[in-house]
Amino acid sequence: MRLVTFRANVSASARLGAIVDDLVVDLQRLGAHAGQAIPADILDFIDLGPHAVASTTALLEAHRGKWPLGTALPLVNVKLLAPIPRPRKNIFGIGLNYVEHVEESSRTLDTAKELPKQPVIFSKPPTAVIGPDDAIEHNAAITQQLDWEVELAVVIGRRAKRVTDEKALDHVFGYTVLNDISARDNRRAGQWIYSKGQDTYAPLGPVIVTADELADPHNLNLSLKVNGVEKQNSNTRHLLFNINHLIADISAAITLEPGDIIATGTPSGVGAGRTPQEWLWPGDVVEAWVEGIGTLRNPVVAVGPQTRSGS
Amino acid sequence: MRLVTFRANVSASARLGAIVDDLVVDLQRLGAHAGQAIPADILDFIDLGPHAVASTTALLEAHRGKWPLGTALPLVNVKLLAPIPRPRKNIFGIGLNYVEHVEESSRTLDTAKELPKQPVIFSKPPTAVIGPDDAIEHNAAITQQLDWEVELAVVIGRRAKRVTDEKALDHVFGYTVLNDISARDNRRAGQWIYSKGQDTYAPLGPVIVTADELADPHNLNLSLKVNGVEKQNSNTRHLLFNINHLIADISAAITLEPGDIIATGTPSGVGAGRTPQEWLWPGDVVEAWVEGIGTLRNPVVAVGPQTRSGS
Repeated sequence: MRLVTFRANVSASARLGAIVDDLVVDLQRLGAHAGQAIPADILDFIDLGPHAVASTTALLEAHRGKWPLGTALPLVNVKLLAPIPRPRKNIFGIGLNYVEHVEESSRTLDTAKELPKQPVIFSKPPTAVIGPDDAIEHNAAITQQLDWEVELAVVIGRRAKRVTDEKALDHVFGYTVLNDISARDNRRAGQWIYSKGQDTYAPLGPVIVTADELADPHNLNLSLKVNGVEKQNSNTRHLLFNINHLIADISAAITLEPGDIIATGTPSGVGAGRTPQEWLWPGDVVEAWVEGIGTLRNPVVAVGPQTRSGS
Repeated sequence: MRLVTFRANVSASARLGAIVDDLVVDLQRLGAHAGQAIPADILDFIDLGPHAVASTTALLEAHRGKWPLGTALPLVNVKLLAPIPRPRKNIFGIGLNYVEHVEESSRTLDTAKELPKQPVIFSKPPTAVIGPDDAIEHNAAITQQLDWEVELAVVIGRRAKRVTDEKALDHVFGYTVLNDISARDNRRAGQWIYSKGQDTYAPLGPVIVTADELADPHNLNLSLKVNGVEKQNSNTRHLLFNINHLIADISAAITLEPGDIIATGTPSGVGAGRTPQEWLWPGDVVEAWVEGIGTLRNPVVAVGPQTRSGS
């Protein structure tokens, strides 16, 4: 399934949906027609485990093309939110997880030249999450170095505590796209949460593709464009630490829970690594794309008084 | 008020209480007697804002010594949980916020000698939180350098986005104690979430003292004992960045919400800074104390096979 959280109109509540062709199917309403209690909130749905994915997938198949009135809306009529609008804990981000990005980062940021021997983990608060087409805030009072990072994000489906690499993918609910926005000039004593955790710095979506529909998460092209010009282009087969290892490693110390999100790191081509360096400014549009999932598009907008120093 | 979250017995649900003398008053039940709808969950209570604090304080005063049956239990009969058992986002920790701790940390850890010019912010996931007398897990497969850090923790009461230093304390709900447990040998490329964010690494409590009852949060003694021996002893007047500034600084970038927790940093005397270095081992008992709030006591227990290398 391709799951979304949507509002049918501006004053409607946020609801769980599945995209089928050019429609959004309201899963709770479809379930009600079939006598199945499907939650309206995606986290409640993830809590139900793999059985809910299988039975809901079957329900969609059974009704395809003959949707009861009020259960399917044109996709163009709805507002998509982040598929998980409010994660229950911080998002786990992974730094320096593609070889060429380690190299560009060591040239221009304060990171080491050597490949990390263990995953470099940081966090983004749940308040950083925004959805498709929502605005990334550019506050010139705080940053003059706003940067992009396209990433494959993993959504946890089953509680994971000390799981092995071999069993790790059994704990995945699905996959989505995260744009790991950073204010490069806001790093502090090496800690990244201030530079990466600001409000609107975690665009997420547009959909979660459930794990059963993505054959191999370690062979997905991903790219990022700014104003239509490609800046990043790679494939998840180049991940230094693969998804199995990231889940095993984090869960060795920190319990991963249903709905938790791990952003797996970004390939080379970030603004800080370019010559000359490039940054995001109000009016820019960023499109982060991962094969099989889709394009996450976000405009950059000014908040507060805008002054561009340097550039 | 001195607010707690408690279970009346092992199978009871977690409920909001206030400590009065040697009793825990069940606030929802007391409210019901008086026709006031007081929530049973502390986060729901904090959401209600300062008015709820004032009216509940008055309600307690009015009933003191004449508690309706079932509204007050002996404190020794109940199990205290962390006052906020499950924060809604990561806890914000502040590194290097006492001068002498900056010095000891630069000698033995990989931090700079100079005083930080801006707060050094890191995060602990909500899954790290445990309550009074709960066990801090010592997993010898992961760490041989488990360390303590007593800290005054601030609980946010009103949403804060870009507030000034002057207005910052208006956004505080109250204060509690946090023991910022770290696995010093688990730092990664400078990022601290793995070393400080593990399950059980955020003992919290025993109570939240509401801001109206703590005259000056910037003049509180705090100390920490291991097995009865004092290891840390200082006063919050030595904070490099005071609470006003921490709230203003974080909220300049990250929205602080009701129930959010900021741990303000630890003074000198941590295990890593001692000669020779000292670490926590299974069987140890740690007591973190802040004046006017109380003592947060936690035992250290082994999980997984125990091997002590080195020491």
